[in-house]
Amino acid sequence: MPKPLIALDWGTTRARAFLISETGEVMQRRIADQGIQSVPAGGYPAAFEALAGDFRRAAPDAPIVLAGMVGSRNGWVEAAYAACPASPEEIAAAAIRVELDGSTTATILPGLSCDDGAFDVMRGEETLIVGLRLTDGLACLPGTHSKWAEIKGGRITRFASFMTGEVYGLLRESSILGRLAEAPAGSDAADGAARGRAAATRAGGLLNSAFAARTEVLAGRMPGGAVGPYLSALLVGQEIAGARSLFGKRTEIHLVADGALAESYGGELAAAGLTVRTTTPEAAFIAGVRRLAAGLVA
Amino acid sequence: MPKPLIALDWGTTRARAFLISETGEVMQRRIADQGIQSVPAGGYPAAFEALAGDFRRAAPDAPIVLAGMVGSRNGWVEAAYAACPASPEEIAAAAIRVELDGSTTATILPGLSCDDGAFDVMRGEETLIVGLRLTDGLACLPGTHSKWAEIKGGRITRFASFMTGEVYGLLRESSILGRLAEAPAGSDAADGAARGRAAATRAGGLLNSAFAARTEVLAGRMPGGAVGPYLSALLVGQEIAGARSLFGKRTEIHLVADGALAESYGGELAAAGLTVRTTTPEAAFIAGVRRLAAGLVA
Repeated sequence: MPKPLIALDWGTTRARAFLISETGEVMQRRIADQGIQSVPAGGYPAAFEALAGDFRRAAPDAPIVLAGMVGSRNGWVEAAYAACPASPEEIAAAAIRVELDGSTTATILPGLSCDDGAFDVMRGEETLIVGLRLTDGLACLPGTHSKWAEIKGGRITRFASFMTGEVYGLLRESSILGRLAEAPAGSDAADGAARGRAAATRAGGLLNSAFAARTEVLAGRMPGGAVGPYLSALLVGQEIAGARSLFGKRTEIHLVADGALAESYGGELAAAGLTVRTTTPEAAFIAGVRRLAAGLVA
Repeated sequence: MPKPLIALDWGTTRARAFLISETGEVMQRRIADQGIQSVPAGGYPAAFEALAGDFRRAAPDAPIVLAGMVGSRNGWVEAAYAACPASPEEIAAAAIRVELDGSTTATILPGLSCDDGAFDVMRGEETLIVGLRLTDGLACLPGTHSKWAEIKGGRITRFASFMTGEVYGLLRESSILGRLAEAPAGSDAADGAARGRAAATRAGGLLNSAFAARTEVLAGRMPGGAVGPYLSALLVGQEIAGARSLFGKRTEIHLVADGALAESYGGELAAAGLTVRTTTPEAAFIAGVRRLAAGLVA
């Protein structure tokens, strides 16, 4: 019989705390800029109290499960990566305990590692992927460092990271391409996206195609408002092409995103001819952490 | 009968001024951080005087030819791009005159534009390419925005830019990949280059392969000193692959570079199985500007 659950998706810059009912309903949520980088040494019990102390008082018997960078070398304690291929049971078995106070412990979920050509790691995304409840499929989790994960026979078999969000920020804000960029107006977003999508498959590759965001504007052939959408579609298109090259061509992708990322990735995946099934990060996290919590030794 | 020549390669951040003898010997050179971005409005005659006034007094009858960003919208006056395909004669014919003082003019060489899928431009590199005196061939000019140019029948038929140098700087200095990077020691440079070269052909593409510069170090499988060499070889490898995809597979490449760039590009081109013929940027500029000056209407 499942109990209520207190679960935190505790990342580098942000923490998301949830009080979840027996049936999986989110009864309370708190989203705060209290990522692990803002927690001083020895400050985790106090930081947890600030984020979820009231959840504990509302549900004193609820197990407490923490996912994300809180389990990294720079977090509360390091929970060693579980190695791919990994089932939800194997991920749960690699969780570790920390003491909150004399009478209560919390469980920190491990991240995942993958050694498939290049060594790669994730922390937090494994919980969202588990929440998709896939037996076989390919999941895309866009972000600063997007993750693509392959699931076979209910296990996460391998995954790969793409620096798409970070490279977008660098090119848009810190490179020569940003100098001619303006806020998109009118048809700029659609225009830029269509051009970036076409550029993503051009023979010269990313280092060449990105430069057109400058030269096409200088030549008066593209408005400054299209620069950002162009770069976004170019980079997302390159990510999709790279992932398809790594994981094979699929007909269906499970996208974990909301807001602007759901829109941009959903659009580019559909333009690539893929059927997109979208789950919000919160829904995937809630489903995943409940599934992993059920597998933890009580 | 050729006369002595005063020639400046005048770029955004740097100016290189030469007094060249009738036979092509560099009699005097001055390299200064007086790129066009440091010249105030109306300040070009004075800036020229500071850079090459003594050359004029040493050779009062020498024609004066300026190449590079000095002919851009942000330079002395804008010299419209000559369009590819362009012969040396066609480039020289598109040069324009500016007045230095009441009795003397200088010639500003145009840049080149290319409309081959994406619109692309260069300013200054066209002079170096002309200096290679190629009838047919492929030239590579590495830098912040590397240029590859195809020459057929003595004309520059098309070219493409790659943001290799700028993206290297962003990833090495401003991305998460820089945090674990250290100065190369021992075998770090060779080790990183070998890994980056292998990563350049990996299926996931640049956005995926770059991330390994972090994960491999975190996993203790690559030293921090190899991060820079890894990224360099990865990006140069991607540039070479993109250029070969655009311009076809060749057996020979004309590389215009010296110092560290000649070493890194020379190494990666050779590793890709290409025969490399290297010319220094100064030698290419001197030969090119003399050739173009000979084509100018006296």
